[in-house]
Amino acid sequence: MTDAPEREVAEEVSRIAEDIDTMEIRGAATIADAAARALAAQADASEAESPSAFLDELRAAARVLCDTRPTAVSLPNALRYVFRDVRGATVEELRESVRESADEFCERLDTAQHDLGRVGANRLRDGDTIMTHCHSTDVLACVEGAVEQGKSLSAYVKETRPRNQGHITAEALSEMGVDVTLIVDSAARRYLNDVDHVLVGADSIAADGSVINKIGTSGLAVNARDRGTPIVCAAQTIKLHPGTLTGHTVEIEMRDESEVIDPETASEIGDPEVLNPAFDVTPPRYVDAIITERGQFPPESIVTLMRELFGESPIQPWEL
Amino acid sequence: MTDAPEREVAEEVSRIAEDIDTMEIRGAATIADAAARALAAQADASEAESPSAFLDELRAAARVLCDTRPTAVSLPNALRYVFRDVRGATVEELRESVRESADEFCERLDTAQHDLGRVGANRLRDGDTIMTHCHSTDVLACVEGAVEQGKSLSAYVKETRPRNQGHITAEALSEMGVDVTLIVDSAARRYLNDVDHVLVGADSIAADGSVINKIGTSGLAVNARDRGTPIVCAAQTIKLHPGTLTGHTVEIEMRDESEVIDPETASEIGDPEVLNPAFDVTPPRYVDAIITERGQFPPESIVTLMRELFGESPIQPWEL
Amino acid sequence: MTDAPEREVAEEVSRIAEDIDTMEIRGAATIADAAARALAAQADASEAESPSAFLDELRAAARVLCDTRPTAVSLPNALRYVFRDVRGATVEELRESVRESADEFCERLDTAQHDLGRVGANRLRDGDTIMTHCHSTDVLACVEGAVEQGKSLSAYVKETRPRNQGHITAEALSEMGVDVTLIVDSAARRYLNDVDHVLVGADSIAADGSVINKIGTSGLAVNARDRGTPIVCAAQTIKLHPGTLTGHTVEIEMRDESEVIDPETASEIGDPEVLNPAFDVTPPRYVDAIITERGQFPPESIVTLMRELFGESPIQPWEL
Amino acid sequence: MTDAPEREVAEEVSRIAEDIDTMEIRGAATIADAAARALAAQADASEAESPSAFLDELRAAARVLCDTRPTAVSLPNALRYVFRDVRGATVEELRESVRESADEFCERLDTAQHDLGRVGANRLRDGDTIMTHCHSTDVLACVEGAVEQGKSLSAYVKETRPRNQGHITAEALSEMGVDVTLIVDSAARRYLNDVDHVLVGADSIAADGSVINKIGTSGLAVNARDRGTPIVCAAQTIKLHPGTLTGHTVEIEMRDESEVIDPETASEIGDPEVLNPAFDVTPPRYVDAIITERGQFPPESIVTLMRELFGESPIQPWEL
Amino acid sequence: MTDAPEREVAEEVSRIAEDIDTMEIRGAATIADAAARALAAQADASEAESPSAFLDELRAAARVLCDTRPTAVSLPNALRYVFRDVRGATVEELRESVRESADEFCERLDTAQHDLGRVGANRLRDGDTIMTHCHSTDVLACVEGAVEQGKSLSAYVKETRPRNQGHITAEALSEMGVDVTLIVDSAARRYLNDVDHVLVGADSIAADGSVINKIGTSGLAVNARDRGTPIVCAAQTIKLHPGTLTGHTVEIEMRDESEVIDPETASEIGDPEVLNPAFDVTPPRYVDAIITERGQFPPESIVTLMRELFGESPIQPWEL
Amino acid sequence: MTDAPEREVAEEVSRIAEDIDTMEIRGAATIADAAARALAAQADASEAESPSAFLDELRAAARVLCDTRPTAVSLPNALRYVFRDVRGATVEELRESVRESADEFCERLDTAQHDLGRVGANRLRDGDTIMTHCHSTDVLACVEGAVEQGKSLSAYVKETRPRNQGHITAEALSEMGVDVTLIVDSAARRYLNDVDHVLVGADSIAADGSVINKIGTSGLAVNARDRGTPIVCAAQTIKLHPGTLTGHTVEIEMRDESEVIDPETASEIGDPEVLNPAFDVTPPRYVDAIITERGQFPPESIVTLMRELFGESPIQPWEL
Repeated sequence: MTDAPEREVAEEVSRIAEDIDTMEIRGAATIADAAARALAAQADASEAESPSAFLDELRAAARVLCDTRPTAVSLPNALRYVFRDVRGATVEELRESVRESADEFCERLDTAQHDLGRVGANRLRDGDTIMTHCHSTDVLACVEGAVEQGKSLSAYVKETRPRNQGHITAEALSEMGVDVTLIVDSAARRYLNDVDHVLVGADSIAADGSVINKIGTSGLAVNARDRGTPIVCAAQTIKLHPGTLTGHTVEIEMRDESEVIDPETASEIGDPEVLNPAFDVTPPRYVDAIITERGQFPPESIVTLMRELFGESPIQPWEL
Repeated sequence: MTDAPEREVAEEVSRIAEDIDTMEIRGAATIADAAARALAAQADASEAESPSAFLDELRAAARVLCDTRPTAVSLPNALRYVFRDVRGATVEELRESVRESADEFCERLDTAQHDLGRVGANRLRDGDTIMTHCHSTDVLACVEGAVEQGKSLSAYVKETRPRNQGHITAEALSEMGVDVTLIVDSAARRYLNDVDHVLVGADSIAADGSVINKIGTSGLAVNARDRGTPIVCAAQTIKLHPGTLTGHTVEIEMRDESEVIDPETASEIGDPEVLNPAFDVTPPRYVDAIITERGQFPPESIVTLMRELFGESPIQPWEL
Repeated sequence: MTDAPEREVAEEVSRIAEDIDTMEIRGAATIADAAARALAAQADASEAESPSAFLDELRAAARVLCDTRPTAVSLPNALRYVFRDVRGATVEELRESVRESADEFCERLDTAQHDLGRVGANRLRDGDTIMTHCHSTDVLACVEGAVEQGKSLSAYVKETRPRNQGHITAEALSEMGVDVTLIVDSAARRYLNDVDHVLVGADSIAADGSVINKIGTSGLAVNARDRGTPIVCAAQTIKLHPGTLTGHTVEIEMRDESEVIDPETASEIGDPEVLNPAFDVTPPRYVDAIITERGQFPPESIVTLMRELFGESPIQPWEL
Repeated sequence: MTDAPEREVAEEVSRIAEDIDTMEIRGAATIADAAARALAAQADASEAESPSAFLDELRAAARVLCDTRPTAVSLPNALRYVFRDVRGATVEELRESVRESADEFCERLDTAQHDLGRVGANRLRDGDTIMTHCHSTDVLACVEGAVEQGKSLSAYVKETRPRNQGHITAEALSEMGVDVTLIVDSAARRYLNDVDHVLVGADSIAADGSVINKIGTSGLAVNARDRGTPIVCAAQTIKLHPGTLTGHTVEIEMRDESEVIDPETASEIGDPEVLNPAFDVTPPRYVDAIITERGQFPPESIVTLMRELFGESPIQPWEL
Repeated sequence: MTDAPEREVAEEVSRIAEDIDTMEIRGAATIADAAARALAAQADASEAESPSAFLDELRAAARVLCDTRPTAVSLPNALRYVFRDVRGATVEELRESVRESADEFCERLDTAQHDLGRVGANRLRDGDTIMTHCHSTDVLACVEGAVEQGKSLSAYVKETRPRNQGHITAEALSEMGVDVTLIVDSAARRYLNDVDHVLVGADSIAADGSVINKIGTSGLAVNARDRGTPIVCAAQTIKLHPGTLTGHTVEIEMRDESEVIDPETASEIGDPEVLNPAFDVTPPRYVDAIITERGQFPPESIVTLMRELFGESPIQPWEL
Repeated sequence: MTDAPEREVAEEVSRIAEDIDTMEIRGAATIADAAARALAAQADASEAESPSAFLDELRAAARVLCDTRPTAVSLPNALRYVFRDVRGATVEELRESVRESADEFCERLDTAQHDLGRVGANRLRDGDTIMTHCHSTDVLACVEGAVEQGKSLSAYVKETRPRNQGHITAEALSEMGVDVTLIVDSAARRYLNDVDHVLVGADSIAADGSVINKIGTSGLAVNARDRGTPIVCAAQTIKLHPGTLTGHTVEIEMRDESEVIDPETASEIGDPEVLNPAFDVTPPRYVDAIITERGQFPPESIVTLMRELFGESPIQPWEL
């Protein structure tokens, strides 16, 4: 970790950092885009006179940005991606390198969901039935891609307690012309034999191939495997979690108990403790493929893509 | 099937049949008790002059009773149990035999839940944590038995959508002094490693060892097996389903969709089809033991008890 | 084993024994029926003056019969069944007891396949698709029962190399009005997901719940389990193999290699060794239920029925 | 539980009880034999004038005997077996009934190991390789039976830490002419593919089909299943544990830590806690068959035999 | 996709395209070699005056070639391989680059099967028994390599209905000096315990690690896993299917029904529908390793090799 | 393989080779470091006048070194690593290249265990319980890392017969402040449910993802998977075995039988054959992650790292 005095960062960087902090800028992709552009802005604005001063400023900017939402994996991913290819012997070369790297990242990001959707769509056949858990725009992109290819699909949509995001999924699928059947989460196994593909999204994906996604995903995956039903995870590469390369585990957020039971009812039944974990971890052996905008991968191979995109360093490059 | 003209049945039988039909008499055990007593009443009231006339009347009474709620498994069970041991060369001997058989059945029924609770309690150790699904008084009897033995227990209680019977279980366990943690159904797998026993009830149990219980039981059982957590089903023998001896499958009730989603919300999200099956079927290989008032059994052996208690005949004895 | 001098047996017994030996009498059920009737004939013809002399004759008759086809399991089963209940203090009582026991056995045998078919039919639902392996009249009885109940069925029929008994099954099912699709044995897994029930017969069933059936059954069962497709074995109780109660294993017949490859072709490809086992052994954990005329059983419970029907003695009763 | 005043028991009963207590009489079968004979002695010595007084004395004798070694399962088994069939209207009839029941028990016990050995021997084929864990005379009886049938066998013998009972097994097998290979416990999996049968004994067997046996059995069984190697448990019926019918679990003895590490070495490595459980529990799904003197059973069916032999009562008959 | 007017392609390219189309040129490796050489010929013949014109011609040539046999995976693989490294600022540099890339490809191809055979041979030990399904020259290369290393092998050869390619394998193995045993497909499981390695080839291999091979492979693999027998797939890298990187599934060819049953017999048995799929899909979790000329890989890692050899682009480079 | 005359190697190389041979230099990392430095010394000492002469000398040095301990995988790994990047047009460039490559290797090696420890430590949470098998300094580094992060840990330590390396592990863990419980190997399954992570080292790791480690690892891993307990292998990249890329299997050392039983005891029990394999092979499907100094990987992906670090060549570079 650097002992250098904290550098001033460009005004644009501060502004973006604040917007991320106040959730003016939100959503995994939007945050990533802003973060990459902020580094480019820092490079543009830099008046550093030496390469090392330039890099010190860049690192300072990254630190400022990263500290705003340390758990949003797409934020450090954008920063790592840009840093990965920064090279140059002069300030100007470095500046240009940052600009190019940021541009490349933003460009890829821009088409990622659409590209991912095309990959996922190719796995689906006309007449197939899918099952969904929670709400994932990456999953929707796959279905949309298939519909655009002229395929007709049906879907079992799990309501996904406690927040019923299945309702949003049901509505979106209906609008695409998919035949939707809504079920409670507990009814999933009963219908798995009628299902051709279970499609889930991901909150993040770990280096050991585990999929971190909405609570209930792992239990569904174990049943899908038991029933011989393929299960596929759709996740853009900004969901890959490079921190897990070095063994870090992903913290599972515990959400408010009022999502599970309203206080009045809770009081009537003796005020039990309520645990409301937002996510769970599905080991790679229960997942058939991870679909990204860079193609599909067995979960056990995603570590290779993670290292290719974000570098393998156990230390964030701005902490060097 | 008999071609004999339909016999008059005793007034008491008609009254009980009506009370079952109007659900004045309800609950598996209460129905069973009433049905057995009705046969005894028929025997008492009979003025038949020959054994065969007596038996014809008894069969007629059984048919009247059985037709009131053909899907309530405890009702034909009570009738089969009483018929199984009816023997005698004279009307008086037959009458006595019906009375004795009905008395024996009612007596056993009376203590069954308590006896079952003692068996289940013996499997639990002080300090154990259980997980429950839905609401079952047989499961509660096991916990109560353990608490009476001085054991301290904790429980993860699944809320059990769509009707949240987990709330009733949570309240009952709290009142017994059990430490209760309420979770959504999807969170079950996450906590299975902290659980010593999964305890579920049964709606009915089939001759092939399958457990028919509240929707979600089978998915939970598969996960429990995957995590190495024992799963036990607590069910009085009146839940055994002799019709399955002859291959009959248990019809799974589909309940109203408004239990899953209120009409207004459904309309907002495009009025998807809603499927709301009340139960599912857990194959015996995912269940460690079935606990009854007659002791515990591997699910694969319950067929032996079923044949012992209710006879193996593929035809209901009152249809002969 | 008795040291008594070999007794003369009744003429009728000798005649039946010869007919079995020359395969004039053949087929599991026909042999069993003949064997039981032969014991009754021996009882009728006996001029023994003491109960022990009568029993010696009866044992001698059983030995003569049993020696004709020692591997046909239905033959000793018929004999054991009759012996099981032979009781009496006088020659006349014994004679009557043999007659009754033989009559009871033959009567049950007479309706067994039809009764079994009704049990199996109850497991099938209208619109179901089955998969078959080899040719089994017990399986056909289940399908026929279902068709008589008005159910419409489809079937994937495995050709069942090397003797293509699947062709016979295909023809029989077609005649019942079942939609038949013929496939090679290797294609079974591909279609298992479209199948609701795999139905197989049995050559014999062992006390440890293993199913001995046409080669290929076990590999099919493992794949059915892996795909979550239920697999059911239809077998009359004369297929139960009491010798296995005492640990005896069932000898697997090796059939002629010309069934697998004609000599000319064999010679062209270098005359490889050819192994052509007729049967294989499916462990009980891969079978969901065994369907008999006495109802359905988990394979792990069939030992109870075996002991009930044929007695548990490790020694054949005619060897005492 | 009876409130009757404690009865005097016959002198012979007291003597036997003391010999069991001081371990003069030891070994599962020897204890069982002595206990049954003690009840017969009590019956012989009784001067009771009423049937109920006679039965009170008999119960008192059973209590005295049972209290000497409450964890030796063969002791209550002998008592339950004798009590099960005690019937009579007069003291003399009861006395005779006890004698007969005790005689029958002792007679069966006398030949049980040999009979069991014949059953187990039938499963082994000439040229087979077995693997053993710990030391079990029931397992040895199976091997001896096979050797007497002229079969040639090889054996992998696990040393079975911490007490190396494998050495005793190795010696006994060598003396029978079996080719013995000794391995450490950890090497078992490596050789499982060369093994035709894993043979283990049992300390006791529970109603849910679980096998309680020397620590390491369950881990071996899981690996045998994973490798597709059959695993068989050889156990006389006096090892069945009727207390488990009512859900009681079998207490696992923790033995002295000096068996695992001598105090001096322990002190050198920082005096770690040492846990030395004597037994573990293998669920029925990992065991192919249980071999008894009454034939072989799938573990899931052993409960039927247990109820047949010892009655199903949740309460010891002498506590009534 | 380019909007450029369709370019003339070199005469040599047209000639090769026609030979592929008419199956003059056939076999995965022969086609691949011809396709790469055709691109080099196009480069040699080009009279393009600008790099972009040169590349347009090259793309046109690739399109012409690719369209001849769109389902032969080795054809686009050869084209992608050559395109992957084409670089240059001038026509001459591009020309040279195409030549070099094509030469490298052909050179590797030339020794691929031999190199693969050496890798596979190293997994086999002296005295091992293998099992084969269908006919694969890559599998034969492994065996040949092992035989050349002086190892003695035995083989169970599945006949592989419906076309009995096992006969070809049996003959080839016999000629190498391998002890061959021919079995019907259904007998495979019975002999898996005597087998050290199951060796299969591949028609193609997908990015998710699935192996597409002759119908029956997946059912065999599931049984091999169940029996603990390792299963290995031998496949040159030209069998890798880059189209699956983008989620495309491999179309399974349905072959003529007369391969399964001759029309006369079909008519005799009621003219059932006949389904004759040529291939099936084995998920990676049932395969231990994929052996290529570039070494062995877990199936879950083959995607990395696929991307390295053929690029990750979701779009064929000649469609850009 | 080169036909060039055997070259003289630098004196320093000979000296190091001898020290490795005499085990003056021992331990995987120490040997690797010495081997890399020896190549650098050879480069320094070379008086070759042409690049090819220089490379011939370098290859000769590698051969001399490699021949000293052909089974120590870290030795060829060091040589392959250095060779992988040797490039240059002149002797001086080559010399510099060797130096750099050797330095880089030694530098990485120097911090590898510490870096690995940090990765492993990140997987452990405060309050976790681990289980260990045998003794591995890589495992200890993970625990030490966690302890330095302030986490409190408990450990079940398997004694690891026959050489009781668990005692060393127990002592080392105690000194770090970990709560240690020592158990015999057979008791592992019993405590797996109380364990959060099984941590094992590796002797070497194969390209198919298999972990070769102390005998007993595979049996433990199968049980851990069965119980749902994660199992992690800690192994520096010098443990990766590039020879397995080409299908070579790792030879399992058979150690002296006196480790298992002292000759006197052996003689007393009939001098059984004793087999004492030092290691076994755990397939990748039973291992959750491999932890290296380069991060954590699913075992199925380790082949990618192996090829990256040591090159994919089937032939050792010094044999070219």
